[in-house]
Amino acid sequence: MISERHLLGPGPSNPYPEATRALADPLLGHLDPEFLRVMDETCEMLRTVWGTTSARTLPLSATGSAGMEAAFVNTVHPGDVVVVAVNGLFGQRMTDVAARCGAEVVSVEHEWGQPVDVERVLAAHPAPAIIAAVHAETSTGVRSDVAALGAGKGDALLLVDAVTSIGGIELRADDWGIDIGYAGTQKCLGVAPGLAPFTISDRAFERRVQTPRSWYLDLGMLGGYVGEAGVRQGGTGQRTYHHTAPTAMVASLHAALSRILDEGLEAVWARHRAAGEALQAGLQEMGLELFAAEGHRLPELTTVLVPDGVDSAVVRRELLDRHGIEIGAGAGPYAATVWRIGLMGHNARPDAVLLALAALKDVLGR
Amino acid sequence: MISERHLLGPGPSNPYPEATRALADPLLGHLDPEFLRVMDETCEMLRTVWGTTSARTLPLSATGSAGMEAAFVNTVHPGDVVVVAVNGLFGQRMTDVAARCGAEVVSVEHEWGQPVDVERVLAAHPAPAIIAAVHAETSTGVRSDVAALGAGKGDALLLVDAVTSIGGIELRADDWGIDIGYAGTQKCLGVAPGLAPFTISDRAFERRVQTPRSWYLDLGMLGGYVGEAGVRQGGTGQRTYHHTAPTAMVASLHAALSRILDEGLEAVWARHRAAGEALQAGLQEMGLELFAAEGHRLPELTTVLVPDGVDSAVVRRELLDRHGIEIGAGAGPYAATVWRIGLMGHNARPDAVLLALAALKDVLGR
Repeated sequence: MISERHLLGPGPSNPYPEATRALADPLLGHLDPEFLRVMDETCEMLRTVWGTTSARTLPLSATGSAGMEAAFVNTVHPGDVVVVAVNGLFGQRMTDVAARCGAEVVSVEHEWGQPVDVERVLAAHPAPAIIAAVHAETSTGVRSDVAALGAGKGDALLLVDAVTSIGGIELRADDWGIDIGYAGTQKCLGVAPGLAPFTISDRAFERRVQTPRSWYLDLGMLGGYVGEAGVRQGGTGQRTYHHTAPTAMVASLHAALSRILDEGLEAVWARHRAAGEALQAGLQEMGLELFAAEGHRLPELTTVLVPDGVDSAVVRRELLDRHGIEIGAGAGPYAATVWRIGLMGHNARPDAVLLALAALKDVLGR
Repeated sequence: MISERHLLGPGPSNPYPEATRALADPLLGHLDPEFLRVMDETCEMLRTVWGTTSARTLPLSATGSAGMEAAFVNTVHPGDVVVVAVNGLFGQRMTDVAARCGAEVVSVEHEWGQPVDVERVLAAHPAPAIIAAVHAETSTGVRSDVAALGAGKGDALLLVDAVTSIGGIELRADDWGIDIGYAGTQKCLGVAPGLAPFTISDRAFERRVQTPRSWYLDLGMLGGYVGEAGVRQGGTGQRTYHHTAPTAMVASLHAALSRILDEGLEAVWARHRAAGEALQAGLQEMGLELFAAEGHRLPELTTVLVPDGVDSAVVRRELLDRHGIEIGAGAGPYAATVWRIGLMGHNARPDAVLLALAALKDVLGR
């Protein structure tokens, strides 16, 4: 018997009800004509939430972290200079992943809680092959200006982590010049963890590694898998067997994307903004201090300092045991001193705001 | 609206009902104490179906093909000699994956439909680092003698693909000397595709690549993720954040494994054997010819020659449209001349045998 939780941490969030129901639908085979239609429509809806027209937009068959790996393993040639903006845990991770692909990594370090300093990143190297940054740092709750990186990228490819931004805040891959983007399903898209929505521009695809070290994440092979040719020709018949698609998870993503686009993508962004602003105002009214730099705070993920004398873990455990609410500890060096409260996807709602604030007041005795 | 299918191809199969219901349960966070218990129990049950006591047994967060990649990327040092027994598509794929990891591949080719020639494989190189083979070739429906490879492996590590054998036929990783094994969930384990059950022996782990090219599949990091230390000390508290576990899929695997072990693993094997033998006898009674070599046929996956003058694709389409039954085309060079009929997991039942035979008779007009 599994407990019911309010998943108000940094992810996973509670899925949209439609996404859960789709998981329980009859399973389709990965080559079934009905599944090929579901996959085509999923890729098409992903283009909308990414803000791209790129044909090479698909859900990779693994979690968001595999999306990061796919991004680098397909685009880093040995010795390539990769400038990475590091303003939190996921920027740090990029440096590790890029180095394993043979990159010469130029790491541009920032204080955690601050957004990416665009000028410093663009000035870090005269001719990088790739500039990489995290749009919404899950570790700190900070949003960075990806559009400005894109405007100044020159000949470099722009590689962006959109794990915590996709489906929650404004994201316009084509307008902003994102060449390679990866995300996850378990945050603002409102689906269980297990897939990595991915997109790559023609420009980046042309420069790709022909035989990447990863077979599983080889984008050259994955084109046939999602029926890239089929999509272009309006058909669904031309598929190459690569691996068995995780059909239940793709059906669930399809259901969530349908719900999001029915509501309207900009309306969904507005719903996240309203929920996050209300939460952040309420936390400050309680006398709590926010961690992320003002003006750069993510509405979907709020970071707040643990008050002096309060044991972070005890509070999180009481929220879970007494109210069935999960919030997150801080990441890395802030594990004990920061909480992370997510209002993502289906949880970006006024009642979730009220509940989070009321439960925190109750447990803190404020 | 999704159609209900009898998934009688090479996988996915229809999940056990318990596995489907678990997907629809409330979602847990990946660090929730209840989820950590689910993960611990899942790893423990996986040890039973693998036939191993290795602490490093876990569900990787991607499909079976990623299991293959994890197997090679963690164990192949550049220049290592890897002997691969190739008797079908998945052996072929191993040679590609191993080469991308920098292996010197010694490929031992076999006629498709035949089992691995153990003597020839063991004689292929005097001192290989790894000997790799597929236990149950999904492309041909053939079982090979893994125990004999293990008995003769010498100092080499034995790497085995158990994607289509696990949970369906006898598999004894420790007794047979399997050092590295990977599998999938969507065949005899009766779960949707999306996870790769994996196991590695202490001996292989000690020889592993310290910083493998893949961050996502780095087994050195994944030990903390599944709470390897926690399992050993009987606790669940010691976890390292690596990536967000696909919690819904793991809960589903937990439910299927519970069902399998409630029935009894040997009883489940016997159920697969009975179903496969009945199907194969029935097909031959219809005058159809089996493809896999006699004495080496998998009960869970039967390959049968398409009769002269019959269009394979038309028959498959009629089975789907008229009876909601999916069977598989042949693989690789046998795409048009072989059918693959799976009776895996929940479908290894007498009624599925009757249905498959009756529907094929109907469509073929026999």
